Amino acid sequence: MDLTALRNANPEHWAKASAIRSLTLDAVAAANSGHSGMPMGMADVATVLFEKHLKFDAANPTWPDRDRFILSAGHGSMLLYSLLYLTGNAEITLDEIRNFRQLRAKTAGHPENFLAKGIETTTGPLGQGISNAVGFAMAEEIQRAHYGKKVVDHYTYVIAGDGCLMEGVSQEAIGLAGRHELSKLIVFWDNNNITIDGKVDLSDRTDQVRRFAASGWHVIEIDGHDPKAVDAAITQAKASRKPTMIACKTHIAFGHAAQDTSKGHGALTDAEQLKAAKQAYGCPLGAFEVPADVKAAWEAIGARGAAERKAWEDRFATLSERKQAEFNRAYAFEAPKKLTSVIRALKKQASEDQPKLATRAASEKVLSVVNPVMTETVGGSADLTGSNNTKTADLGVFDPENRKGRYIYYGIREHGMAAAMNGMALHGGIRPYGGTFMCFTDYARPAMRLAALMQIPSVFVMTHDSIGLGEDGPTHQPVEHLAISRATPNTYVFRPADTVETAESWELALTFKSSPSVLSLTRQGVPTVRTEHKTKNLTAQGAYVLAEAEGKRQAILIATGSEVSIAMQAKAMLEAEGIGTRVVSMPCMELFAEQDDAYRKRVLPAGPVRVGIEAAVRDGGWDRWLLGERGREAKAGFIGMSGFGASAPAEELYKHFGITAEATVAKVKALLGL
Amino acid sequence: MDLTALRNANPEHWAKASAIRSLTLDAVAAANSGHSGMPMGMADVATVLFEKHLKFDAANPTWPDRDRFILSAGHGSMLLYSLLYLTGNAEITLDEIRNFRQLRAKTAGHPENFLAKGIETTTGPLGQGISNAVGFAMAEEIQRAHYGKKVVDHYTYVIAGDGCLMEGVSQEAIGLAGRHELSKLIVFWDNNNITIDGKVDLSDRTDQVRRFAASGWHVIEIDGHDPKAVDAAITQAKASRKPTMIACKTHIAFGHAAQDTSKGHGALTDAEQLKAAKQAYGCPLGAFEVPADVKAAWEAIGARGAAERKAWEDRFATLSERKQAEFNRAYAFEAPKKLTSVIRALKKQASEDQPKLATRAASEKVLSVVNPVMTETVGGSADLTGSNNTKTADLGVFDPENRKGRYIYYGIREHGMAAAMNGMALHGGIRPYGGTFMCFTDYARPAMRLAALMQIPSVFVMTHDSIGLGEDGPTHQPVEHLAISRATPNTYVFRPADTVETAESWELALTFKSSPSVLSLTRQGVPTVRTEHKTKNLTAQGAYVLAEAEGKRQAILIATGSEVSIAMQAKAMLEAEGIGTRVVSMPCMELFAEQDDAYRKRVLPAGPVRVGIEAAVRDGGWDRWLLGERGREAKAGFIGMSGFGASAPAEELYKHFGITAEATVAKVKALLGL
Repeated sequence: MDLTALRNANPEHWAKASAIRSLTLDAVAAANSGHSGMPMGMADVATVLFEKHLKFDAANPTWPDRDRFILSAGHGSMLLYSLLYLTGNAEITLDEIRNFRQLRAKTAGHPENFLAKGIETTTGPLGQGISNAVGFAMAEEIQRAHYGKKVVDHYTYVIAGDGCLMEGVSQEAIGLAGRHELSKLIVFWDNNNITIDGKVDLSDRTDQVRRFAASGWHVIEIDGHDPKAVDAAITQAKASRKPTMIACKTHIAFGHAAQDTSKGHGALTDAEQLKAAKQAYGCPLGAFEVPADVKAAWEAIGARGAAERKAWEDRFATLSERKQAEFNRAYAFEAPKKLTSVIRALKKQASEDQPKLATRAASEKVLSVVNPVMTETVGGSADLTGSNNTKTADLGVFDPENRKGRYIYYGIREHGMAAAMNGMALHGGIRPYGGTFMCFTDYARPAMRLAALMQIPSVFVMTHDSIGLGEDGPTHQPVEHLAISRATPNTYVFRPADTVETAESWELALTFKSSPSVLSLTRQGVPTVRTEHKTKNLTAQGAYVLAEAEGKRQAILIATGSEVSIAMQAKAMLEAEGIGTRVVSMPCMELFAEQDDAYRKRVLPAGPVRVGIEAAVRDGGWDRWLLGERGREAKAGFIGMSGFGASAPAEELYKHFGITAEATVAKVKALLGL
Repeated sequence: MDLTALRNANPEHWAKASAIRSLTLDAVAAANSGHSGMPMGMADVATVLFEKHLKFDAANPTWPDRDRFILSAGHGSMLLYSLLYLTGNAEITLDEIRNFRQLRAKTAGHPENFLAKGIETTTGPLGQGISNAVGFAMAEEIQRAHYGKKVVDHYTYVIAGDGCLMEGVSQEAIGLAGRHELSKLIVFWDNNNITIDGKVDLSDRTDQVRRFAASGWHVIEIDGHDPKAVDAAITQAKASRKPTMIACKTHIAFGHAAQDTSKGHGALTDAEQLKAAKQAYGCPLGAFEVPADVKAAWEAIGARGAAERKAWEDRFATLSERKQAEFNRAYAFEAPKKLTSVIRALKKQASEDQPKLATRAASEKVLSVVNPVMTETVGGSADLTGSNNTKTADLGVFDPENRKGRYIYYGIREHGMAAAMNGMALHGGIRPYGGTFMCFTDYARPAMRLAALMQIPSVFVMTHDSIGLGEDGPTHQPVEHLAISRATPNTYVFRPADTVETAESWELALTFKSSPSVLSLTRQGVPTVRTEHKTKNLTAQGAYVLAEAEGKRQAILIATGSEVSIAMQAKAMLEAEGIGTRVVSMPCMELFAEQDDAYRKRVLPAGPVRVGIEAAVRDGGWDRWLLGERGREAKAGFIGMSGFGASAPAEELYKHFGITAEATVAKVKALLGL
């Protein structure tokens, strides 16, 4: 490439793009780690996007009607940090750029949404950004339908690399976006033909243009270093009625000695080569130096959207007060006041009726009272709607003909669903929930972890949560999945015992602002154990005494979900033999861990033997409660699974694997030496 | 559809296909659960495949050179069971068909490879079978190149449904197969346009033909109920130099009242409708009844391959004795005798040299001595070859030009890699290993679980296993991933402390026959802690006393991997203060749990305070060892992570999160009340 010719052809553009390249080189060199090549390759595309198209106001990075810019190829984080710094973001200062990848810097190795406003989502695990973006675009459509175009009307732009497109989740995202004609989603593919191992051809020869077209996308191919072509492509994309993929032919590490090599993907720190590249760009040679006029030009771009934002605020003010409040409440993840009252009414009814009901069916009952009062919920399932009980009558189905629909048929795409849910929550204004079988937590896992890391309250509705699933067998029977979710930081795992606890769990999940929830729900019917109505949300304490010992307390049974009723049966049998037994229901270990010491000691006093009951592996956080947090507290045993399940009717499996009241009684007696 | 016309056009074919349909209806009705529609829709395709093309010998279902038949749409398990029963498989008897989905039956809800010979792989979690199949086809190519066409020359056939193709992992599989021109891979797509939630169009409008073609596949579209078209398509596919996808337009629940509906996907148990369908097929009405002539015709198909198998045995006998032994050894997952000696030599050298080396680099050293003596290993990485240290000089790179290559550039496809690895192990003759970052265990998770369930010894090489990864930050830093793998049944998780333990871990992983291993390896250098050479594999005991207390034993430090050297530092500091401290290295909790009680008590005697050290969450199985398996054993503490990591240089992170010798000393003293 003739850099001089390019520079002369568009000197102002060149100077701006070069500032990105130069900052990237300096930051990576200072950190002595990071990825230089991608920001250098995509600087032209990003410059045109920000200069001519992206609707944003650097001074107000959370303005709800801004266009979203998602760096799916998150390793190229210096592209984003450069853009934020150059356009005048208040948090990404030059000091932050200098501290790239250092402790406490907002400029982490990969973009972290919670570190600075203007970082829309956390990326780095490849394929996540483009899949989040589908949720962003869906959220925009749903909100536009609900509030009108005058307050919601923006685009979602994505930069994705070869890695993003090789990850399977991208196919799920592409399929969903194509099906739903998410025309305001525009993806730039950084087509540089380089991965870490070498040329893309080492592992892939997919014709991406044909692949996207096969799923109903509009596709444009351009030279990613030609600003006019980039501009024209974006204009075309915005006019399309389909989602658009712009294949940008680029050179990784553009203008550097490592250009077009896999070395160029990584950290380019050689001082001489760095200097040579800067000279080729015509940049100042001092580290982190950006000419004042270039910085001013970038800041003008950052200020470009201020008027538009003000105009939007005026339009927003014309909404009814009720609509404004609803909009703001949803963006703040504030639950409506009515939530408490509908939950309480449902709990009261359940305690009175005492139904034997699967908790997945209980969950549907809860949703049927919640969805009408929480207009920000958007539900869905990965092709298990009837099994996950996620659809309520009022939601309507989201598709190009019904943008008001709040129910999404995600198809057989657990991972894409979870990532899209995260995108909706990150977009703002939407509280997403979505269902699959608990066992397929596995498929959704990378996105579920990111929900926790990103501090967003996605709700994962995981039904068929044990061998109680029955005949489908071990491929579909979770045994380690409670352990997996519980081991994940900032994730609340609820395993409610009956309709009342299901309602309480949902109430909590729907009031969280910065943590995802996993609802672990049964396929099979379970009796009501909360037969006495309490307005207080007992699940909020994580664990509580469901039934006290009659006479001297010799044993404590701790159980969750479908096994609480087994504990209650065992208690009755033990009491009949004169063994005083307390039953503790423990629907949420994380919340119990958050209670104060005194409460935890009251619920689990030292002394009595303890038996945990859960149709899952003991590794799921049990030993802390069984053996005693402080050690030396109690003799303890566990009734649960120690391996994979089997294919048979559920009741037989419970007997086969010894998860019964009889086995519990025997365990208690053995521990008591009886 | 005019069933009578179809029946009259091909009466013999029709009778055979109808037997499948009829058995399916009966088995599902008897179980009162299962999936009727798919076997009914694909019966014609399967009948033609088995009758005219599939190379197999029902009496010898594990004949190494058989064609592989993989039912990726595993919910349609009755298709496979019917075929096995009808062709005369010794294990899938009529009684097994009658016991479909019952406890201890070989006819589980979804096909389980370990229950009967003839079930090539466990399917049900969608997308896995088609992704395994890529590994099967790679294994065939690699073995053919190694042993010659006269002993290895077979096809891999797959039936995949819409669900398989919507799962993202299918894109990874398609991309890999296309890139590597796996021409002996032939996929039938059951194009019935129905999913559980309704028509496929609800969630997807992808043009699958165009999608496969975009990744370099040969694609044929046929009417899946026309036996001549099926036959012709298979013939064409076999001649293609690319992998082939045959799009079979079918009717789900063909001939039943529920045909072409999502109800038809599930269990069709209505007695009247069942009778009507059988009548339409012209089948006998009695449950599980197959006319004798039809059964005989099927059995003839089952016997068709016997002569071919015998001819193969003769050809196999012409191989040199060495080659025969090598072939048989690899199929039996027997490690070569030389393995022990090369491992011991490496251990000895390491104990002498005492290098400070990242365990990922130690792993490469091990592989460099192992790969030359184990010709059955096939390595690879999901685009992190240089980081995972998985490639050794002798392997050669697998591609269409070099089928002897034993190293696979999987691309950015962790899930597809793990599933392909499983396929290679299932194919037989190959011992696969593959690498990515430990954090991206998340992406590979569904296939890693299946490796454990399927009882195959895939080795997952997971490097960059903690905050020691440094600047890439929390998206790339595992904290809960040891817990995830340890909670998974039948999975051995190794976290070696140095080069010696890395060699020992590899030795164990390479000798397992029915369990996968996860090797958790550091990015950062770690000192040698095993400074005294022992020929015995100490890692085989899971945990052992690395350093005994001097004087009275007051504390036991238990550590894994990179934290063992921290424990050794802490011990030195504690001993200096007169606090006798034992250090236990615990590279594999699962193996330690398998030792007898006496050994475990010797390593972890009751009394001294215990501190666990691992740069991960405590949930990863620690409490059992810290609090005491029997309860009341010890006061205990843990030095590790309680939340996500951060982006910074590794050494700073260790300090920041308090995973240091100093913190360990403080914890011990606090527990001792000092």
